[in-house]
Amino acid sequence: MSILLKSPIDALRQYVEFPSVSADSKFANGVKGAREFACARLEELGFEVNLVPTPINPIILGTRGDPSWPRLVIYGHYDVQPPDPLDLWSSDPFTAVERDGRLYGRGAADNKGPQIVHMAALARVLRDIPDYPVHITYLIEGEEEIGSPSFRGFLEEHKNKLQGDLLLVSDTGSPSPDQLVVTTGLRGLCAMEVKVFGPKQDLHSGVHGGALLNPLQALMHACSSLHDADGRVTVPGFYDAVRPPEKWERKELAKLPTTEDEYARFLGVSNFFPPPGYSSLEAIRFCPTLEFNGVGGGYQGEGSKTVIPAEAFAKITCRLVPDQKSDDIAEKVKKAIIQACPTAVRVEVEIKGGGDPYVVIPPGKPGSTGEETDLMKKAFRIAEDCIERGFGSSPIFLREGGSIPIIQDLKEVAGLDSLMIGLFTNEDNLHAPDESFHLGIMDRAIHSFESFFKELV
Amino acid sequence: MSILLKSPIDALRQYVEFPSVSADSKFANGVKGAREFACARLEELGFEVNLVPTPINPIILGTRGDPSWPRLVIYGHYDVQPPDPLDLWSSDPFTAVERDGRLYGRGAADNKGPQIVHMAALARVLRDIPDYPVHITYLIEGEEEIGSPSFRGFLEEHKNKLQGDLLLVSDTGSPSPDQLVVTTGLRGLCAMEVKVFGPKQDLHSGVHGGALLNPLQALMHACSSLHDADGRVTVPGFYDAVRPPEKWERKELAKLPTTEDEYARFLGVSNFFPPPGYSSLEAIRFCPTLEFNGVGGGYQGEGSKTVIPAEAFAKITCRLVPDQKSDDIAEKVKKAIIQACPTAVRVEVEIKGGGDPYVVIPPGKPGSTGEETDLMKKAFRIAEDCIERGFGSSPIFLREGGSIPIIQDLKEVAGLDSLMIGLFTNEDNLHAPDESFHLGIMDRAIHSFESFFKELV
Repeated sequence: MSILLKSPIDALRQYVEFPSVSADSKFANGVKGAREFACARLEELGFEVNLVPTPINPIILGTRGDPSWPRLVIYGHYDVQPPDPLDLWSSDPFTAVERDGRLYGRGAADNKGPQIVHMAALARVLRDIPDYPVHITYLIEGEEEIGSPSFRGFLEEHKNKLQGDLLLVSDTGSPSPDQLVVTTGLRGLCAMEVKVFGPKQDLHSGVHGGALLNPLQALMHACSSLHDADGRVTVPGFYDAVRPPEKWERKELAKLPTTEDEYARFLGVSNFFPPPGYSSLEAIRFCPTLEFNGVGGGYQGEGSKTVIPAEAFAKITCRLVPDQKSDDIAEKVKKAIIQACPTAVRVEVEIKGGGDPYVVIPPGKPGSTGEETDLMKKAFRIAEDCIERGFGSSPIFLREGGSIPIIQDLKEVAGLDSLMIGLFTNEDNLHAPDESFHLGIMDRAIHSFESFFKELV
Repeated sequence: MSILLKSPIDALRQYVEFPSVSADSKFANGVKGAREFACARLEELGFEVNLVPTPINPIILGTRGDPSWPRLVIYGHYDVQPPDPLDLWSSDPFTAVERDGRLYGRGAADNKGPQIVHMAALARVLRDIPDYPVHITYLIEGEEEIGSPSFRGFLEEHKNKLQGDLLLVSDTGSPSPDQLVVTTGLRGLCAMEVKVFGPKQDLHSGVHGGALLNPLQALMHACSSLHDADGRVTVPGFYDAVRPPEKWERKELAKLPTTEDEYARFLGVSNFFPPPGYSSLEAIRFCPTLEFNGVGGGYQGEGSKTVIPAEAFAKITCRLVPDQKSDDIAEKVKKAIIQACPTAVRVEVEIKGGGDPYVVIPPGKPGSTGEETDLMKKAFRIAEDCIERGFGSSPIFLREGGSIPIIQDLKEVAGLDSLMIGLFTNEDNLHAPDESFHLGIMDRAIHSFESFFKELV
């Protein structure tokens, strides 16, 4: 019997223990292990599985059923974030450990747990209804955590294999184990790395200090010019395309059980810092950001070392909202940095992968077109029912702050709209030490998805 | 026969191979080894050697001769800078390697080479004149590279043992192997570490970005407020006590064989960035600085990681000129940072060790008092002669940019003025990868110091 039927938790445990960090090439074996694990599960479910090569990590493509049936595409990713800083983990990030109703490990929630939920639910459906009349295409990529650099190319080349009526995704969040969210929008992303070069090597800051511009000083000068004192981004044109949220979106947000105080406690901050005119809970959904993910240069060790460093760097990402475009914003930020950087040093800005923001209006909500596919209309309705039965309350329809850049690509290239059902919560510590997945959500979600799949036909 | 007489280069080789990095406690054994090596050399020379305990690394105190004789104090330090970044060294930093007339290794020039020069010259003097009628006190500390935190306390307690007529130091630079400098001033130093704290742990920059202030953004905002666009320090009161250089100092500087172009090529910069009104060669001697020696926060590895970091840091040092005071400037910078840091994060500024700037007017130069000790008057004159004979040209009398904070302390507490003869050059890469000591300078300097010591009596 498939491990998906016997013990979904054991399946997740095994999946988590492959250290599939896509950002660091030393984890290549872990990436391969996770990929093979996912393929094996799909084959057990009766999928025909192909690996589509990419310059980095192959994409898993599995299909079952008759192409004339309603066509569902399911998305996931088998790669995970780096585990650093390692010393802040309570247990090894790649040893799955169960504690207090959670399974701890890097990737447990993002995105291995939700994938196991879908697969375990499907395993039950296909056990009970072997000829389940939905054509399903499984799409699991291995470069999501590095911005899916190969995905757009893959999409252009294989878009005929991705035709469908709806995309199902569970790579988004919900406020609590009792209150799920159907995600109606994702922020876009653009990423860049700034490097500032000064002297040809690190210099003694006593012997030479005063003669030349310190690259860290130049970098901080340029970077600090990108926000005003209120935290608004000062890059010219940055906000030009930003669309304010719809009325119904603010109403849905009001249903959120989380209070600002609870949110502050969760983050461990005493002050929020949203842009003027927005609450913190609005800002993370409706506002774009320009964030410094890593800055470094000079001596990083214990004590002091009196050097002028030869170079300094900043890793920057922007989160984007409709109708900002990733390429456009990246170019604008790059230009602003180059203009702000003093000419006494040399600056390089490399634009990395990105993706445009995505928004879907649920069928029937104000602003929807009525031209959605039958499967999409049915799926949104059934999802609401199944979640209410499984979790005790109706889902909230809400945009979220994270990015899955390929969702908008799939919309643009393959015409697929997405039903995104959030299965992780803030307490799962995504991208942070002690990531975990809530086993109560896992159990309820497997039941809800089993009903969802069964009622869809 | 003492290794100092047999082969000063072998002595230096052995001394360099003790990795005596004071900034990092994992090098404790290397620090101990270097200390024992220095003590053994002094004992061979007939010194009575004592170790004065401090909270970190004991100070070596050696004495010889009759206290009624003219009294010379000689200073050095047995600790070295950290070797990072290790990957930029051409050979292991703690394996002494001879290449192209240089001995490579961390500490070869700063300060182990010059110490071996003094000791080797003294070994010849004491071999030829066993009753050499100068009372010599040797003072070698082990915390210079971390700002000599224990030295001031040691000085207050043991100042009676440091009474003398002149301090001899070779821990300063010269422009070339053919043109030595007698250093007439050293910049002071104050050091601090800034830490900015945001959320209780690293956060996903998609899920939470926009709600809170990124500690890196706050840190860069505060740090970039400390200089204006011309590079002048904006900290209120920073320049209040700065004395402009004397006329004779600018005249001596004009004798320097180094051109600005050569200096730019040496540093590997296409543009200098001195404060308005100063050339680069003036700025490093006559102007104070506020320098970022290390800045860090967030993801430092390969690729990207989309986090908002929990904290960020900046390691800052200021170089100070007469009549700035280290404690005063440290407090002013600390206050400016705290005022500039947005209140949506928590900031801590820890002031580390420092020292006031030092200046000595050579006996006979405009501005000198005529009240110098006989030994000091004679030493400055003889030094000029011996250097001219040994190196082919008279030394230039010039302030330099580096700091030896304890020189001003020795002046203040023990009344000692310093004769500082520079034995390293820019090409020696102090505090940088591939540090080395010029063996031609070493050889000539041993001869010159032998003459100097002999003619002093």
